[in-house]
Amino acid sequence: MKIIVDAMGGDNAPASNVRGALRAVKELGAEVILVGRGEDILTVLAEDGIKDLPAGIEIAHASEVVEICDNPATAFKEKKDSSLTVGLNLLKEGKGDAFVSAGSTGALLSAATLLVKRVKGIRRAAMCPVVPTAKGGALLIDCGATAECTPEYLLQFAFMGSYYAERVMGRPEPRVGLLNIGAEESKGTDLQRETWKLLKKADAEGRINFAGNVEGKEAVLGAVDVIVTDGYSGNIFLKTMEGAGSFLAGEMKKMFMKSITTKLAALLVKDGIKDFKRMMDSREVGGTALVGISKPVIKAHGSSDAYAIRNAIRQAMQFASSGIIDDITENVEYMRLPVMHKPAAE
Amino acid sequence: MKIIVDAMGGDNAPASNVRGALRAVKELGAEVILVGRGEDILTVLAEDGIKDLPAGIEIAHASEVVEICDNPATAFKEKKDSSLTVGLNLLKEGKGDAFVSAGSTGALLSAATLLVKRVKGIRRAAMCPVVPTAKGGALLIDCGATAECTPEYLLQFAFMGSYYAERVMGRPEPRVGLLNIGAEESKGTDLQRETWKLLKKADAEGRINFAGNVEGKEAVLGAVDVIVTDGYSGNIFLKTMEGAGSFLAGEMKKMFMKSITTKLAALLVKDGIKDFKRMMDSREVGGTALVGISKPVIKAHGSSDAYAIRNAIRQAMQFASSGIIDDITENVEYMRLPVMHKPAAE
Repeated sequence: MKIIVDAMGGDNAPASNVRGALRAVKELGAEVILVGRGEDILTVLAEDGIKDLPAGIEIAHASEVVEICDNPATAFKEKKDSSLTVGLNLLKEGKGDAFVSAGSTGALLSAATLLVKRVKGIRRAAMCPVVPTAKGGALLIDCGATAECTPEYLLQFAFMGSYYAERVMGRPEPRVGLLNIGAEESKGTDLQRETWKLLKKADAEGRINFAGNVEGKEAVLGAVDVIVTDGYSGNIFLKTMEGAGSFLAGEMKKMFMKSITTKLAALLVKDGIKDFKRMMDSREVGGTALVGISKPVIKAHGSSDAYAIRNAIRQAMQFASSGIIDDITENVEYMRLPVMHKPAAE
Repeated sequence: MKIIVDAMGGDNAPASNVRGALRAVKELGAEVILVGRGEDILTVLAEDGIKDLPAGIEIAHASEVVEICDNPATAFKEKKDSSLTVGLNLLKEGKGDAFVSAGSTGALLSAATLLVKRVKGIRRAAMCPVVPTAKGGALLIDCGATAECTPEYLLQFAFMGSYYAERVMGRPEPRVGLLNIGAEESKGTDLQRETWKLLKKADAEGRINFAGNVEGKEAVLGAVDVIVTDGYSGNIFLKTMEGAGSFLAGEMKKMFMKSITTKLAALLVKDGIKDFKRMMDSREVGGTALVGISKPVIKAHGSSDAYAIRNAIRQAMQFASSGIIDDITENVEYMRLPVMHKPAAE
């Protein structure tokens, strides 16, 4: 399995990206193409005392870097020799099985959509992180790729999310919930009410396992495996969870730092605290899958360190070997609404 | 200060409502009118060994109760002798200074809007709970009263929320943030982009202190005092926070229950755990203000116990003495958009 890694994207590039790739080769048996400035990549290797390119690592030189100030919609065209554009072209040409980038989300989304293209019939790509829940995590689809959605987009997200949960997360017949502000089908806005009907129909046809509307609280408590939502609300959900995790971890820290007695308590539960931190640590998952694109693309967190990049490569390997894109391609006819034809003019 | 309390609304009515009222009279110096079935209220008092109606408590008899199965939009009309309808009519007639109910949110919202009416010029009422944040809490407006909003509604929420934060929460020049999926003014949907402009203008005129867009994470971490949002997203935010709090509290409990050693640790930080629980406890705030109505109305949580009802009464007293409704009434002209007139027909 060969994974193409954007060596230049992210806050800690290229060092963390190169080191993460090395770990993935060693620990996961991956092959990696590092895309970016060859001299910068070699410098990182030299700093680590590596003189010869290790087996399993290739370098594809790209002289430019997409920066935060570039227009995300057009960066890949304006910087044709960027690691982003070169990397995605390698993916398109079949030189690797998946692409991982910790660079700008917007630029990655635009470039993947326009260079690699969506699966035929899929209206919008979605970003779907695995969020921690009381039942071992759920897939949130979408978390911000498409802020404004139609019922058809959400129907497609439900199918794609269901395939991902089954094949990558190992959840048989994943329960799919529609994020809403109440359990009844009348709740929410027109978008949720229309989508509810489409998901109910797909469930009746045995294509997905629709568990109905799910409120934010029940979603966090693990009521479903897949949380379907438009990108605006999904982003609110995701960021609110992140904020709550960070806030409560901070309060817990304060609690343990108060006195010598409480510091002793912290020592007594140090393994538990470690588990707690691990559960909340986005580095464990590695990245966020971009589904709906015709080839596997993973967005790693902008602040990824080597360990996070290694895990994003692991996730890319799982994605590429999962068969999800075949699932989507084969079933796309069930995810589409009939086009409303206007009556022909006389 | 006389507070009208729906004795029959909520999961623990009438017992908790009556006992909460007794506590408010004794501990806060409130006067309370308990509205509901006289005999049921007297039974609760008798159970507590109280034979004579205590000073500060009146009973207004209402023979009916709005139930969960009633249509929220019409319950107050169909049950004219319900505690909800009788209580709100007392408020309207000036027999008390504020109304508190732990009954159905939908029924309360409809009844308050149609019986007591909104402040003239206010398009929609909003429900605004105080949510815990790393900086001592923020006002979330709206959390579900109005799922679909226009920019004008959100402009009005910003003003009303700002008055509430200043006068009830004691935040001078409260920072008002627009909940969004990124900091830049281009982020979100048309609703957020249009609202951003209106809030910017209100800030330039010195009417509110607009801090710009705020993401879910920063909102939880306390970046602003007032979080402005439509009811759909606000509900997602609120319920996600509740879920995350409950999820992480459960994980913490598991951590402390693992062994004798960890149980000892729990003993050593037991004061900290108590503070932690208190911070997450919705009973401390008491209830959620319904702003935009011409008189103060507080929704207490459906599961309120006596302590939560006592605190909801305290909140109603603060609301009634705050002058917020005067603020809204006097400034409503700045919260309205020019009506688009259609060209007159020839």
